[in-house]
Amino acid sequence: MAVELDATEPARDRLERYADLAVRVGANVEEGQNVFVVSQIEHAPLARALTRAAYAAGARYVDVMYRDQHVRKAMIELGPDEALTYTPDWLKVRAEALNGAAMIATTGDPEPELLGDLDGERVGKAQMKEVTEIIRGHMIARGINWSGVAYPNAGWANEMFGEPDVERLWEAVAFCTRLDEADPVGAWREHMARLERRAAALNELQFDALHYRGPGTDFTIGLLSAARWMSALFRTAEGREYVPNMPTEEIFTTPDRRRAEGTIASSLPLALLGDIVKGLKLTVKDGKIVNVEAEHGAELVRSQISSDEGASYFGELALVDGTSRVGKTGITFFDTLYDENATCHIAYGFGIPETFEGEPGEGMNISSVHTDFMVGSPELEVDGLTKDGKAVPILRDETWQLPE
Amino acid sequence: MAVELDATEPARDRLERYADLAVRVGANVEEGQNVFVVSQIEHAPLARALTRAAYAAGARYVDVMYRDQHVRKAMIELGPDEALTYTPDWLKVRAEALNGAAMIATTGDPEPELLGDLDGERVGKAQMKEVTEIIRGHMIARGINWSGVAYPNAGWANEMFGEPDVERLWEAVAFCTRLDEADPVGAWREHMARLERRAAALNELQFDALHYRGPGTDFTIGLLSAARWMSALFRTAEGREYVPNMPTEEIFTTPDRRRAEGTIASSLPLALLGDIVKGLKLTVKDGKIVNVEAEHGAELVRSQISSDEGASYFGELALVDGTSRVGKTGITFFDTLYDENATCHIAYGFGIPETFEGEPGEGMNISSVHTDFMVGSPELEVDGLTKDGKAVPILRDETWQLPE
Repeated sequence: MAVELDATEPARDRLERYADLAVRVGANVEEGQNVFVVSQIEHAPLARALTRAAYAAGARYVDVMYRDQHVRKAMIELGPDEALTYTPDWLKVRAEALNGAAMIATTGDPEPELLGDLDGERVGKAQMKEVTEIIRGHMIARGINWSGVAYPNAGWANEMFGEPDVERLWEAVAFCTRLDEADPVGAWREHMARLERRAAALNELQFDALHYRGPGTDFTIGLLSAARWMSALFRTAEGREYVPNMPTEEIFTTPDRRRAEGTIASSLPLALLGDIVKGLKLTVKDGKIVNVEAEHGAELVRSQISSDEGASYFGELALVDGTSRVGKTGITFFDTLYDENATCHIAYGFGIPETFEGEPGEGMNISSVHTDFMVGSPELEVDGLTKDGKAVPILRDETWQLPE
Repeated sequence: MAVELDATEPARDRLERYADLAVRVGANVEEGQNVFVVSQIEHAPLARALTRAAYAAGARYVDVMYRDQHVRKAMIELGPDEALTYTPDWLKVRAEALNGAAMIATTGDPEPELLGDLDGERVGKAQMKEVTEIIRGHMIARGINWSGVAYPNAGWANEMFGEPDVERLWEAVAFCTRLDEADPVGAWREHMARLERRAAALNELQFDALHYRGPGTDFTIGLLSAARWMSALFRTAEGREYVPNMPTEEIFTTPDRRRAEGTIASSLPLALLGDIVKGLKLTVKDGKIVNVEAEHGAELVRSQISSDEGASYFGELALVDGTSRVGKTGITFFDTLYDENATCHIAYGFGIPETFEGEPGEGMNISSVHTDFMVGSPELEVDGLTKDGKAVPILRDETWQLPE
């Protein structure tokens, strides 16, 4: 095994511009702010570039924490049971310190199936819930301007293309994140304005529910009048704008956890907990997932949705049409940050506090889990249902049916 | 730039045996103990092997913290002044948690001159004193069973050999750490017993001072009657034996900080704070370093010895003879863990609490710094001075002159 931290000279300039975009548009680091970077060790060239870009933007201190999936694998494989759920105090203190800070997390798994041969139940159990809860608290309080960006690497490229063609992956990433534009910052501003207009139009229509129809899917889920549709142009409590996902192509809302019925099938593979879930099919009753089937990885989803009470309820509905740059690549990225922006998706677990004005209202789901899975395809039809039961087409053949 | 995390299949077996030795002989991890690993990202294959070996030895939880010199470089180069001495709270909490735990730190700098072109004063300032002080507290209380081991890597090999011959470096490391023996654990037991006998013989002679003579060196330094000579076979307060350095070839003691006079010249280059100090020459008066000269890197040493009151006084004297496996390789490793075991060395800064029975007595130096530099060579003569002024030869031509 040889893990390459690749950053040849021509790529370095691209890497610097990419890091700069993540710092200035993504997290939108404020002068004098502490910046937390969370990166797998294989993403070190990006973490380093982010660090430099953050200091250049006036960061007070950049705190980089490297993660290593092999260390995690060793714990799950060889550690005692108590290690699986153990949370060191220092990680809680570090999580507390995120409030008021900027954060940038990297994605792009260099070994997406590394944990695939481990006991699925132990993999599912291995999580630091206390840390997740602290960070969720900051999210609810809108205390962090954060962003996620991917780092193209050989293992990830190999999973996608069957060969470690990092350059091809870089080109796809540059296209999806608008780094190929002469003025990426301007292109992002325009792009976000269009998504904001879509969200505004949906909010005006005040649908009571959505109805999804497609192969293996016949699913109705309630909307909350208190939760608006929005784009991923977020604002902290202090009003600082940031874009938590780069790329982003979605508009989304928090559904009513109490109202969901039917069956919903995934349309793309889902990278989850070190393995790939394929052909996922969920049966839902009274808002709750009551049955999980899959061609591969069903036990991972079952373990995850039983990790707390809210994990088997829904937290997000997101709409993406065929103009998506991610969708246009025609590539399955095996990375949620990308694949969820290729097409429509739904998440079980935690809702999205930002969709509420002020405190999240009743009906928003609470959980330590938030897992997006893709449901969109040319065959998927999405309707908005009005309070008096009328169906209004929103998506047909991946084409947006409402004004924008 | 491409950083290779190299661990080919045949090397993996060696790596596993090496990690096992570090866990079982070095830190001597106790069943149910928390284990902290501190590793540069380029040492990840070793950190992973240490994690597996620690869990196999019954560790309760293995906490791996990766460091990245490029992140540090960005801070020194681009960060505000306050970033240099800023210590995140979580790092203090993590340092507190080391008490009662095992710790393994890796060495072997992949880019030893990375910080060489930065402002020496900023490099010297960039340290987290509070963390160092917390850990020193645990050391004084003998609360940690810890060890340092090196990871052979391309950059380090290149610094040593002028070419990235990692296999040659691995062979040298395996020789020095007795991994080439059929029974490395048995070989270590025998080796430590011989060093213990040397220490016992010196303790019996009760010298009042040592006198060093050689090219550029004429140096007398007082010994403390309360500080014994010892090998690096350490014991925690609870009596757990461990070997903090692998390799180790030295016997050492804590000198009297109040009594040192003369000039002392280094005999080997010294890797310090991201640069290489060459041709170091110190002038000492009343125990204190009053002048620093060097062919290269003097300002780094000057900055370091002015970082607190104790930094310009001495904390360690160590004797190594020509039987040293490290010395026998004839290689300059540019890594203190190795080079200090090639030949006699002296450290300015913090003394060694373990050399005292119970609380360290008066005369032990206190500092947040502890920097070993090499003074031994075939030309160096070391005498023990008795209380009535008699000189007894200890080392001549790198040959031990006392019974062992």
